[in-house]
Amino acid sequence: MALHIALDAMGGDRGPDELVSGAIQAVCASDIEITLLGDEGLLLNALKGRKYDSSRIHIVHTSQVIEMDESPFDAIRKKKDSSIMRAFALHKEGKVDAVVSAGNSGATMAAAIKFLGRLDSISRPGIAGIFPTLKGPVLMMDVGANVDCRPLHLYQFGVMAAAFSQVLFGHERPRIGLLSIGEEGGKGNVLVKKTHELFQQSNTLNYIGNVEGRDTFQGDVDVIVCDGFVGNVCLKLSEGLAEAVLGMLGEEISKTIKAKLGYLLAKDAFRSFKKRVDYAEYGGAPLLGLNGNGIICHGRSNPTAIKNAIRVAAEMARNKVNDQILQLLAVEGETQGVPPVTGASS
Amino acid sequence: MALHIALDAMGGDRGPDELVSGAIQAVCASDIEITLLGDEGLLLNALKGRKYDSSRIHIVHTSQVIEMDESPFDAIRKKKDSSIMRAFALHKEGKVDAVVSAGNSGATMAAAIKFLGRLDSISRPGIAGIFPTLKGPVLMMDVGANVDCRPLHLYQFGVMAAAFSQVLFGHERPRIGLLSIGEEGGKGNVLVKKTHELFQQSNTLNYIGNVEGRDTFQGDVDVIVCDGFVGNVCLKLSEGLAEAVLGMLGEEISKTIKAKLGYLLAKDAFRSFKKRVDYAEYGGAPLLGLNGNGIICHGRSNPTAIKNAIRVAAEMARNKVNDQILQLLAVEGETQGVPPVTGASS
Repeated sequence: MALHIALDAMGGDRGPDELVSGAIQAVCASDIEITLLGDEGLLLNALKGRKYDSSRIHIVHTSQVIEMDESPFDAIRKKKDSSIMRAFALHKEGKVDAVVSAGNSGATMAAAIKFLGRLDSISRPGIAGIFPTLKGPVLMMDVGANVDCRPLHLYQFGVMAAAFSQVLFGHERPRIGLLSIGEEGGKGNVLVKKTHELFQQSNTLNYIGNVEGRDTFQGDVDVIVCDGFVGNVCLKLSEGLAEAVLGMLGEEISKTIKAKLGYLLAKDAFRSFKKRVDYAEYGGAPLLGLNGNGIICHGRSNPTAIKNAIRVAAEMARNKVNDQILQLLAVEGETQGVPPVTGASS
Repeated sequence: MALHIALDAMGGDRGPDELVSGAIQAVCASDIEITLLGDEGLLLNALKGRKYDSSRIHIVHTSQVIEMDESPFDAIRKKKDSSIMRAFALHKEGKVDAVVSAGNSGATMAAAIKFLGRLDSISRPGIAGIFPTLKGPVLMMDVGANVDCRPLHLYQFGVMAAAFSQVLFGHERPRIGLLSIGEEGGKGNVLVKKTHELFQQSNTLNYIGNVEGRDTFQGDVDVIVCDGFVGNVCLKLSEGLAEAVLGMLGEEISKTIKAKLGYLLAKDAFRSFKKRVDYAEYGGAPLLGLNGNGIICHGRSNPTAIKNAIRVAAEMARNKVNDQILQLLAVEGETQGVPPVTGASS
C-alpha cells in the first residue's frame, strides 16, 4: 500500500513554495501520497501551474504558524491550529504514516511527544543526525532534543540509532561508539564513564567503545552516542567548519587568474564533492523513540532535501523502524547482565 | 633580557629530531635561549652537524619518558626524572620562563599544576585552543583539562582567555561568547544557563552572550567558553572534519585528468589555504591559570609548530599574561554585582 506523509508546509526559512516543490518532486518520484498542512491560499498558489498527480497531494488548511524562534512549549500550548500540531494530530489519528517538518525543531519534537507519545520503555526520544563520512553515513544521537542526560538515556540513544542503521542503511550489526575525549574506556566526563559501563554490560550490541571527535568523519563507526548538547554543538560546528573551509579555499582561489582557471577545470570535482557532503541527501534528522515516524529538516532545506526527507520518512514507516527498536530492546532485556531497558521516569 | 624556554624534547609522536629542529629554528629566528630536556645521547645526535648559536641551546639529561597513552597521575608520581617533570621543575626554580611540550597533555597539565601551582583565586587552570577563522584566531577554553565543570570554572576560563587575547592578539576588549545550542540566553544545558547568569553580572567583560558551533569559524567572537569535554570534542571534530573535507575533495579531483590539471593550476591556492588553517601557526595551546607559562603542542607537531610554540611561550612570559589575568579578576571583583572571583574549593 502506498504510504502517506504529512508535510508541515509552513516551516523553514525559505517559505511554502520550496517545501511544496519538494513535495511535488517526491510525488513524481514515487507512489507516495502527501498531505500539505498550511495556509490554503498560499499552498494552492504554490501548486498552481505545476505538473503532478493531483490525486496524491492534499491540502489541510491551518490558520497558525509556529515561528522558528518561538518557545516550543508556549507554541504548542497556544497554537493548536498550527501546521506542526495539526500534522502530528493527523499522524495520531492514523491518517498519515509519518510527519516531515523543516520548522522550529523544539516545537516539532514537543508536538511529536504530545501527540504520539514515547515508544514503550524509552525514557527520552531524541534526534538522530546523519553525517556524511569518507565511507558512508554515520548517525549521531542525540543532536539536540535532550541537553541534560543520564547514562540510561545515552544507552537508549545507541539502541535506537542502531535499529535505524540496521533498517535504513542495512548494517546488520551497527558499530556503536560513545563520543568521548580519549579512546580508553576510563576517559571522559562522569556521564560518559557511567554510560560506558552500561554499554559494556550488553551482550548483543556491537559496542566498540569510546570514539573521538576526529573519528566522526572516518566512517569506521555507524552510530555515535552523545547527549543532545554535545551533539548539537557538533552538528553546528561541522556545518560552520565546512562553510569556512570552502569559503577560505574560495578566497585563495580567487586571488590569481591561474588558480581561477584551475578551479574552472576542477569544477565538476568540486560539484561532486559538494553533492557527497550535502545534507540534502538524507533530507533531515529522524526523530526516534516515538510511537510514530518523524523527520526534522534543516530550516534552510531546499526542495531536494524535502523530497529526500519525505522518502526517508516513508522508508522509516515501511520498514517499521520502531518495531526494530522494540525488538533490540527486548533482546537486550533477555540477555544476561544487561542494563535496565525500562526507566521512563529516570 | 633574552627569555629562556624549556622544551620537553622527548614528547610527541615524531621523536626528538623534529623537536630539536624546531628549537634550532626558534634560536635562529630570535634571541631566545632554550634548554632541551631528554636523553642526552639522542639530543646530541639530533644537534650534530646543525648550524646554530650553541651558546643558546642547552641540554639537561633526563632518564625517563612519559608515554603518550600513560595515565597522567601515575606517570607524574612514578617518573620524577622524566623530561616533562624536570622541565616544570626548572620553571619552578626560576631557571626558565616557560615550558613547551608536545607530549602527554594530561601529564603536562598535571606536572604544571604540581610544580607551579594555580594562579591566585583561579579554581581550575585550563587549556586554551587556538582556532583559525575567516578573520583571525579565536581562543576556545577549555579544550580538555576539565571535563566536569561548574559555572565559576567556565566564568574564569572566559576571564583567562580574554587576558591572553588582549596581550597576545591585541584585542582591547575581547568578545567573549558562551558555547551553547541557541543564541538566546535561556538556551543550553544547566551548566551553560548558570554560567550565562554569571557572565551577565559582569560590568567589565565584553560578554556577547551565547554563541553556537557554527559561529566558531566566522571570526565574530574572540573567546569561546566551554567545558573541557565539549571543547576537546570540538577540537578533534574540527581536525577530523578538515582532514575529511580535503580527503573527499582530493578523491573527487583524482577521478578525471581535467580536474587533476585544474588542481595543478590551483595548487598555490590550496597551499595558501593549508597554511592559513595550519595548527602550526600558533604551535600549540597555552595553559592558563598557572603560576607560570606553558604551551601544549599537538603530538604530531612539525618543527615549524615547535618553533612557533616557543615564540608564543616567550611572548606569554614577556607580556606577563598572568599579571593581566590577575588584573582582570581584580577589576571584576571591584565592580558591582560581580560573581565571586575566588572559589578555589568550588
